[in-house]
Amino acid sequence: MRIGVIGGGSIGLLFAYYFSFRHQVTVVTRRKEQAEAIQKNGICLLADGKEQTVKVRGRAELDSGYDLLFVAVKEHQLAAVLPELEKAAPLDIMFLQNGMAHIPVLEKWNAGHGIYTGAVEHGAVRVDDRTLRHTGKGAVKWSAFRAASADGLKKELASVHEAFPFIWCEDWYGMLAGKLIVNACINPLTALLRVKNGKLIEEPMYLSFMKLVFEEASRILAIDDLEAAWENVLSVCRKTELNTSSMLADVLAERQTEADAIMGYLLKRAKETGSDAPHLAFLYHSIKAVTER
Amino acid sequence: MRIGVIGGGSIGLLFAYYFSFRHQVTVVTRRKEQAEAIQKNGICLLADGKEQTVKVRGRAELDSGYDLLFVAVKEHQLAAVLPELEKAAPLDIMFLQNGMAHIPVLEKWNAGHGIYTGAVEHGAVRVDDRTLRHTGKGAVKWSAFRAASADGLKKELASVHEAFPFIWCEDWYGMLAGKLIVNACINPLTALLRVKNGKLIEEPMYLSFMKLVFEEASRILAIDDLEAAWENVLSVCRKTELNTSSMLADVLAERQTEADAIMGYLLKRAKETGSDAPHLAFLYHSIKAVTER
Repeated sequence: MRIGVIGGGSIGLLFAYYFSFRHQVTVVTRRKEQAEAIQKNGICLLADGKEQTVKVRGRAELDSGYDLLFVAVKEHQLAAVLPELEKAAPLDIMFLQNGMAHIPVLEKWNAGHGIYTGAVEHGAVRVDDRTLRHTGKGAVKWSAFRAASADGLKKELASVHEAFPFIWCEDWYGMLAGKLIVNACINPLTALLRVKNGKLIEEPMYLSFMKLVFEEASRILAIDDLEAAWENVLSVCRKTELNTSSMLADVLAERQTEADAIMGYLLKRAKETGSDAPHLAFLYHSIKAVTER
Repeated sequence: MRIGVIGGGSIGLLFAYYFSFRHQVTVVTRRKEQAEAIQKNGICLLADGKEQTVKVRGRAELDSGYDLLFVAVKEHQLAAVLPELEKAAPLDIMFLQNGMAHIPVLEKWNAGHGIYTGAVEHGAVRVDDRTLRHTGKGAVKWSAFRAASADGLKKELASVHEAFPFIWCEDWYGMLAGKLIVNACINPLTALLRVKNGKLIEEPMYLSFMKLVFEEASRILAIDDLEAAWENVLSVCRKTELNTSSMLADVLAERQTEADAIMGYLLKRAKETGSDAPHLAFLYHSIKAVTER
């Protein structure tokens, strides 16, 4: 397949790297220098003490001729990307944003493309414009959001790379809601306490606090199997115990966080149903205050 | 009376200013330059658009010959002050620290002095070494912690200055616990959300969060009249709605906060009784993380 990846952050580079072994990959970045660095020197991935470089194309503008596009920009950058995608001939597009704030946007967006959503369960950190570290090996869960048939894509995504599995999910809502709960529990707390993910389950009082956040988020998202969802949060904390969450990384680097896509989205949903979410409100405003300082 | 005030922060300067009208006042500061500025130019107080300067003595070391000493340093600075006080001949000393972390220290401290505790319900901001703004007029509640008789002091403190009333409290524990609850509710939340005190009651979700903090703190301190204590927190938020809390001021100025004296003390008490306080733990560690950044 001819694969396009929009976004040169850690997730964009991760996708480009693993697809490059069996597909022709182009990374489309906002900054020209990054596109040139990728075009000239490829993408270098560090994992398990080894490094490997792969050749991919780098572009600063979206061109045509793709079979599958991954949109790997943050939710608050989508507004700049969608108009470009509207110009393209119908193709399959998978959106990889955290949270669910992009869902109402995609619901209204009808550009004739097959639309898929993905939930990335990998840890990755960008080291420089063309280098990344694969810090946590996981999977990409994906689902059809609005598409005629996912059969062709299912075949293709079944064998991308043995270290980069795709897991099909019938229910996109459950898939994204599950990921959102994990993000809501782990991201703001680690960012405010400035601790690695594992601390949230090591320290009993952080754990009780995280449970309070979980209860709010799972009620807002109307999660059925609360026990399984909570067990999943704990399991992600365990598996990524030495990781710095993306929100903590954003706070430390003084970048815009995904507070709107994660807590902001949940607060909006809570408001619509007239329910109360003091913990999420507090976390949302504290993160905003810290980053706007 | 010959009054000594230890500490040249906003509260120390405030006490020195109001006592200077009917008493001989000495301010003892840590920095020599501040003592000299006070000795040379007096203390200047700004309030209601006016300013007034009073003459007081300034010293960088504690001398002798006082009838009453106010200790207006923060709790974490007490360890540097107590050894000095041990050298003094028996006199009356009033401790003005926020929180209750100084109580176990004073319980063990037996230097033969009459010991009183005060809870300052004034807002004051230091402008420079000898100038302060009196931003919120209130009262000083005081009580005997360990003293033969408070009768003499009661008479003297009844008429310090019409804008600086002292209110006698029979029960030092209830007095300090009431103030501590207010501090625990207002200080860390305003510091993390970076909002003025009034916002905590304006924004319904901040209010719900503050209530959760109140419930923990009041349970730990075994407060009897919960309704009155909560009403008092709300009333302080209303009266000081435009004020920047001292903890927010400390965070913004990158100074050490009173997190240990306020949340730290409550957490210690919670731990002793084996009870849970996830909100206070979260606030404590978040404030620590922000200031240690």
